[in-house]
Amino acid sequence: GVNSSRWIISPMDTRYRCWETWMAVLVAYSVWMFPFEAAFLSACPHKTEQLLSIARSIVDLFFAVDIILTFFVAYIDPTTQLLVSGSGQIAMRYLSTGFIMDVASTLPFEELLALAFTAKHKISLCFSLLGLLRFWRLRRVKHLFTRLEKDIRFSYFWVRSARLLSVTLFLVHCAGCSYYLLADRYPHKGKTWMGVINPNFRETSLWIRYISSVYWSITTFSTVGYGDLHAVNVVEMIFIVFFMLFNLTLTAYLIGNMTDLVVEGTRRTMEFRDSIEAALNFANRNRLPPQLKEQIIAHMCLRFKAECLNQHRLIEQLPKSIYKSISQHLFLPIVEKVYLFSGVSRELLLLLVTRMKVEYFPPREHVILINEAPLDVYIIISGEVELIDYGSYNGGHKEEETVVATLQTGDVFGEVAALCSTRHGITYRTKTLAQLLRLRTHDLIEVMQIKREDKATMIHNILAHI
Amino acid sequence: GVNSSRWIISPMDTRYRCWETWMAVLVAYSVWMFPFEAAFLSACPHKTEQLLSIARSIVDLFFAVDIILTFFVAYIDPTTQLLVSGSGQIAMRYLSTGFIMDVASTLPFEELLALAFTAKHKISLCFSLLGLLRFWRLRRVKHLFTRLEKDIRFSYFWVRSARLLSVTLFLVHCAGCSYYLLADRYPHKGKTWMGVINPNFRETSLWIRYISSVYWSITTFSTVGYGDLHAVNVVEMIFIVFFMLFNLTLTAYLIGNMTDLVVEGTRRTMEFRDSIEAALNFANRNRLPPQLKEQIIAHMCLRFKAECLNQHRLIEQLPKSIYKSISQHLFLPIVEKVYLFSGVSRELLLLLVTRMKVEYFPPREHVILINEAPLDVYIIISGEVELIDYGSYNGGHKEEETVVATLQTGDVFGEVAALCSTRHGITYRTKTLAQLLRLRTHDLIEVMQIKREDKATMIHNILAHI
Amino acid sequence: GVNSSRWIISPMDTRYRCWETWMAVLVAYSVWMFPFEAAFLSACPHKTEQLLSIARSIVDLFFAVDIILTFFVAYIDPTTQLLVSGSGQIAMRYLSTGFIMDVASTLPFEELLALAFTAKHKISLCFSLLGLLRFWRLRRVKHLFTRLEKDIRFSYFWVRSARLLSVTLFLVHCAGCSYYLLADRYPHKGKTWMGVINPNFRETSLWIRYISSVYWSITTFSTVGYGDLHAVNVVEMIFIVFFMLFNLTLTAYLIGNMTDLVVEGTRRTMEFRDSIEAALNFANRNRLPPQLKEQIIAHMCLRFKAECLNQHRLIEQLPKSIYKSISQHLFLPIVEKVYLFSGVSRELLLLLVTRMKVEYFPPREHVILINEAPLDVYIIISGEVELIDYGSYNGGHKEEETVVATLQTGDVFGEVAALCSTRHGITYRTKTLAQLLRLRTHDLIEVMQIKREDKATMIHNILAHI
Amino acid sequence: GVNSSRWIISPMDTRYRCWETWMAVLVAYSVWMFPFEAAFLSACPHKTEQLLSIARSIVDLFFAVDIILTFFVAYIDPTTQLLVSGSGQIAMRYLSTGFIMDVASTLPFEELLALAFTAKHKISLCFSLLGLLRFWRLRRVKHLFTRLEKDIRFSYFWVRSARLLSVTLFLVHCAGCSYYLLADRYPHKGKTWMGVINPNFRETSLWIRYISSVYWSITTFSTVGYGDLHAVNVVEMIFIVFFMLFNLTLTAYLIGNMTDLVVEGTRRTMEFRDSIEAALNFANRNRLPPQLKEQIIAHMCLRFKAECLNQHRLIEQLPKSIYKSISQHLFLPIVEKVYLFSGVSRELLLLLVTRMKVEYFPPREHVILINEAPLDVYIIISGEVELIDYGSYNGGHKEEETVVATLQTGDVFGEVAALCSTRHGITYRTKTLAQLLRLRTHDLIEVMQIKREDKATMIHNILAHI
Repeated sequence: GVNSSRWIISPMDTRYRCWETWMAVLVAYSVWMFPFEAAFLSACPHKTEQLLSIARSIVDLFFAVDIILTFFVAYIDPTTQLLVSGSGQIAMRYLSTGFIMDVASTLPFEELLALAFTAKHKISLCFSLLGLLRFWRLRRVKHLFTRLEKDIRFSYFWVRSARLLSVTLFLVHCAGCSYYLLADRYPHKGKTWMGVINPNFRETSLWIRYISSVYWSITTFSTVGYGDLHAVNVVEMIFIVFFMLFNLTLTAYLIGNMTDLVVEGTRRTMEFRDSIEAALNFANRNRLPPQLKEQIIAHMCLRFKAECLNQHRLIEQLPKSIYKSISQHLFLPIVEKVYLFSGVSRELLLLLVTRMKVEYFPPREHVILINEAPLDVYIIISGEVELIDYGSYNGGHKEEETVVATLQTGDVFGEVAALCSTRHGITYRTKTLAQLLRLRTHDLIEVMQIKREDKATMIHNILAHI
Repeated sequence: GVNSSRWIISPMDTRYRCWETWMAVLVAYSVWMFPFEAAFLSACPHKTEQLLSIARSIVDLFFAVDIILTFFVAYIDPTTQLLVSGSGQIAMRYLSTGFIMDVASTLPFEELLALAFTAKHKISLCFSLLGLLRFWRLRRVKHLFTRLEKDIRFSYFWVRSARLLSVTLFLVHCAGCSYYLLADRYPHKGKTWMGVINPNFRETSLWIRYISSVYWSITTFSTVGYGDLHAVNVVEMIFIVFFMLFNLTLTAYLIGNMTDLVVEGTRRTMEFRDSIEAALNFANRNRLPPQLKEQIIAHMCLRFKAECLNQHRLIEQLPKSIYKSISQHLFLPIVEKVYLFSGVSRELLLLLVTRMKVEYFPPREHVILINEAPLDVYIIISGEVELIDYGSYNGGHKEEETVVATLQTGDVFGEVAALCSTRHGITYRTKTLAQLLRLRTHDLIEVMQIKREDKATMIHNILAHI
Repeated sequence: GVNSSRWIISPMDTRYRCWETWMAVLVAYSVWMFPFEAAFLSACPHKTEQLLSIARSIVDLFFAVDIILTFFVAYIDPTTQLLVSGSGQIAMRYLSTGFIMDVASTLPFEELLALAFTAKHKISLCFSLLGLLRFWRLRRVKHLFTRLEKDIRFSYFWVRSARLLSVTLFLVHCAGCSYYLLADRYPHKGKTWMGVINPNFRETSLWIRYISSVYWSITTFSTVGYGDLHAVNVVEMIFIVFFMLFNLTLTAYLIGNMTDLVVEGTRRTMEFRDSIEAALNFANRNRLPPQLKEQIIAHMCLRFKAECLNQHRLIEQLPKSIYKSISQHLFLPIVEKVYLFSGVSRELLLLLVTRMKVEYFPPREHVILINEAPLDVYIIISGEVELIDYGSYNGGHKEEETVVATLQTGDVFGEVAALCSTRHGITYRTKTLAQLLRLRTHDLIEVMQIKREDKATMIHNILAHI
Repeated sequence: GVNSSRWIISPMDTRYRCWETWMAVLVAYSVWMFPFEAAFLSACPHKTEQLLSIARSIVDLFFAVDIILTFFVAYIDPTTQLLVSGSGQIAMRYLSTGFIMDVASTLPFEELLALAFTAKHKISLCFSLLGLLRFWRLRRVKHLFTRLEKDIRFSYFWVRSARLLSVTLFLVHCAGCSYYLLADRYPHKGKTWMGVINPNFRETSLWIRYISSVYWSITTFSTVGYGDLHAVNVVEMIFIVFFMLFNLTLTAYLIGNMTDLVVEGTRRTMEFRDSIEAALNFANRNRLPPQLKEQIIAHMCLRFKAECLNQHRLIEQLPKSIYKSISQHLFLPIVEKVYLFSGVSRELLLLLVTRMKVEYFPPREHVILINEAPLDVYIIISGEVELIDYGSYNGGHKEEETVVATLQTGDVFGEVAALCSTRHGITYRTKTLAQLLRLRTHDLIEVMQIKREDKATMIHNILAHI
């Protein structure tokens, strides 16, 4: 095992990923060229024919290399989710899954047949039929797209659009080539779709013939159907019947996919509109003063923007160990600097930190109202928080509010009320968008019970601070 | 900072909003005219040509003004959600984002090139290519539509339909102009899509040529494809192949959007039907008497209508401070007039008011049943509530119900049972659609504990009332 | 008020509902005939022309009657949800909403104009323009369809399909008539879409001309576009451009609606498949014995069938008063006959009955397992329940189960364990699909505390029964 | 009853299921051949005509047998969900539901009429009209597809696609045959859609005529509409108008179905992307170190893969009795071998086993963290779990972790802390994908109270193990 694993490649290796992508490109080339060659090869000048043949050989060589390479690539076992890198196991798995088809789709049947038979027309037919084995390779392109769809570095919308476009283009190309083949092989030249327009179509350039085929193909696929090119004999009619049945499905599939993407893309805007509309209806029905109405709308807008910042759900899904690492990395540097915890043991800080939660508040939102029970202690990570005095409750008129002080990054608030178990004596309101660390009073007191000396330090800190 | 900010414009300023809308209109004009001019300018009479040139210059002037103006428009910083109005910061941001493209799309290349070269055909080509820079301006129209989609003063359905229609119309117009350009520039006049029908098409009026182009374009886009106008040469075929690929996507996108809007629009009707159907099935399966069945259906219908009136979810989302302002504004004037709270201190009323919730009851719905525990106290905001006596439980037959009294706006009920901790002695039922303020007995008693003199006043009020 | 209300009609009156439906039929006739008359009236034989004119007058007469009638129809006030039947209020509301348009769409402009002018061609034009006012009447057809969509006696699928079909047919008809009008009014007969095929098309029968127009219209609307009939002159091209833009939207709307209906229709099957699939995966992965696997699948299938029978959600939405009536109607007759409650006061039974819930159990499902805590007491409404003894726990082999007894409608079980607070000594399993009344032991004991004599009766009943 | 039920067939009987499928195949043949025979029978050579007639008779014979057979097939009563196998009840039900239509669609009207009338053309017409009764049989094919859709052995996507394809093909075939019938029966041969192209179309082979009809049909259905074959006379136009209306609906239905399937198929990928995206945004915004970021992403990916393995929801839906059997079958063999429970009575083990839950943990996930409260005891079913020591908390650096031991299938952990009520002294982390049995400490202790001797055994086991 030790010796062999030196030669084993990890499937997550960047170089192997590049090789896979390169193979997908080669597959795309080979399956694209196959119908073209089957239909137009006899019409090509000899030079082009030779070039295409060489290209085909090189591609097949790459596929042969890939078959050998696959014997050295580790795989992930689906039951244990572990990487299997024993060469025996790898070989067993490959031989029992895709090996035979991979070899069959790589063997150069044309050249082998050319040795056996000498008549050209027979080769052509065999080539057409055995060449269909190459479509087995499309599996690789499908895998690439599936991987890209799950890769969030790329936009889902564009990856799926690219996939649909590739499928459509390939189908249109294949249909065009096949349809030309029908006209080319039909005995009575004048009674073919191309022969009706130009009986000597074989004399025109390859380029014009190919473009005409693709033009017919896309005209039919998109259901425009001008009718300038249409089926003439029965064979063409049968071909079109099946092509159209296939088109119907593909068109419906395209529309279905687009609908899916559109619905996904507009969901958030719709939710936003619904919530704003509900707020406005509420304000109008109750004839709230315009000032209050604006405040409500502004709050709804900000909440919508800040919504994606609150990641409670995400963090709750993570396992405890990862969450511990995250909170240690994020909060410990801040918490260490807070005056309340200066001199407190690292052990206690670690316990505290895992119990904290980060929250975002939009600007001018009240964090703590006067007379509230001391449920939470807050530490400011970013943004500013103001202490506001409303002037001893004389009628609740807002005009008399006074900003007593402004707290900034690293400041803690609510700790005095929490530790003294009294109600808050002042209101705390955010000035800008603020990111706050929230610690439940309950958790703080629970943790403080664990170490007596730390409890003493913290109480000492508070007294010194006041 | 103080001096410069005198010249700074807020992006929410109404006048600036108007300017932005006006600029979007100009953009629409300029990108609409560009393909038309590229295709048909040479066919225009000289007078029209001059007029169009002047219009172009005026539009460009406006865009130049807008570029300068942008240096004086404040922006909202996405991290702090605060308005940035420092001229340095504004300039830095604009220079690093859209400035270069804005300038490039505004420079009058045609005139500059006319100075450099004198041959007309070269200008025409450069004009076509550099003019494509103008499509950069479309960004503004997109922003306008995105803003309108989020603006709930306009119907979402119509804004999105307008957006889709604009995109469709613009595409059809562009495709028509481009297709004409192909026919116009093709050397062999007889072998073009227009030349096949009328070899001297250049002699016909501009109007007929434009309409024919747009007619072909929309016939192809909508996939009708009559076939009276179709591709004749290879260049046209290639153009149509790409146009159709694009059409497929756009058609699917149109259908996807419409499906999204339809699904959204019919959701409520479907929910209504589902609930009614469930109710009816229930009634039929259990063979309920027709009278009871009708009552159930009527209740379901009214509940569906009144549903949008109950805004608990909305209010729960609002921050405490806003909720306090709302309840103070809505409920304090009503609560002050209730006999139970006459003479009670404003401070206590404020505390009570924030604990109240508003609820809507459909007509003839029971609010409190006889013998119920005194969980809530209700104050009537609007509508009427009847006190009903069912005649001392003699078999539960409904016929003997007697309306003892009718309560109206400002009346309170359930308070006696709540403060005496006894079960309710009578049934309360709504007569019309009623809006009630609900206060939990628990909250009422909790608040009463805070001030002894107010508690005394309230008990005195009740005794005086009875 | 008293006198006038004798003449007021309720909008829910069956006869008025019939009148409304009849008016909708007349509207359908009049808007359908209007484009036909505008296009083909001059081509009709004189007799047909007279008949159509008479029909038009009769329809207008009906509309005039309806305008007068509307002054006597009560309406539901949207704010109080009460029926308003004061004739003054009705008149005010009608005059301020639809009255003017109703009168304008009913006045026989053609006849009035015939008195003013004598030249026939002028009338024809005015008739075309003023006749468009008749489309205002379509509002009524829309109301009818909206009402039918909410009426659950009709299938939602078919009502919405009928609505979409009506819209499509009407559009196709209008477009066909308008397109014929263009050909008919165009000065150069040979250069019209109909003239190209048959220059003397005016001599052909009315029937052939109408069918040709509709044939063109539907060919274009469905985007088939054979091309045998196509636009020839510029006016026709412009018409087609707008017609196609409209078609695009309508097609997308049709597909959107169908998608909505299909998604709704297949949701349940999908949910069923998902749950069965999950169950099967679970069974396979854990290699459960086939017998157990079948049991699980059978349970899932039955649960799916019985799901719609459990109406907890519905009942929870109903107000307490209605729920009380329902439970009294449904359960009292059964509960009265149960031996446990014989001789118990009606008052206590009523209290018990409102606390009961009905539940459906699929066949062969265990209701109570041996050794379970006595949480609930069950009364059988329908179906059968078996008492099963598993033979004192010797290894849990199922083969040795013995059916001790079978309970039927009206029997109660679980009551002994509940009142003696012991664990259940036997297993209860359903034999057929069973409908059971469940009463929580907690509720039963709570209610029993209220009346001492009833408690004694019940304990006496149990002792007598054992 | 006893005697008759010997002859009764169960509807779930495999042989009867095969018969039903065979009948569906025969239905497919007969409804497919009917329009073909109606249109082309007169054009067939005499030999083919005789063959088709014999085939028709054989099919009808099978249907007759099926009618008789149905009297011996039991059915499931929808109200009791029990199998009804009384022959009287079966006969009553069949006679009152489908019997008459089944007989009407099976009677050989053609042969019966041939006896009555001798003129051939009259038979042909009657045959066409009465043959429509055969479409009643399609009900069986619909039932087959509905059954297949609910059968999870077949892919939902492919069954529904097959259903849609069958409907489409059948419609295209019917439309083609009907359209040929129109051309064939029209008096003026030159003025038909086929006669325009080839006036002597009746002389061409049957095959060419059928393919041409189907080619026209599919060209129209797919809305391509080349226009090479189009309506010529009024009758054909009317036929096409109705055919297109029907097509519109069917196309929309196809697209709606495809959208439904696509949305269903992509939901999981979308959810995966959303969760990964949220995780990555969170990591980037908080600038987490790359190592931690990778850990989070890896966790999200694994969680997504293992998600389908956690079947809590499924098990919660199962009735208690089935759950008991499952847990007994799955967990008892494992639990019996655990050292902790050696010598414990089977009764207690059964109680414990029903309280256990199976859970999957991805590799390298922490199951228990050091210092955690002892909430759960775990037994390993598969996979491996490591005991890790982090080296007495010196700064929380991960590098110093030491694997103390590795636990494997059948091992139990967490039991010491649970029974001694102390905090865990070490961290437990999965090494591979692990399947664990979780038992709440609370449940374990509760069960232990039931039997004193078993409690003593277990404590003895622990002491011996340590």
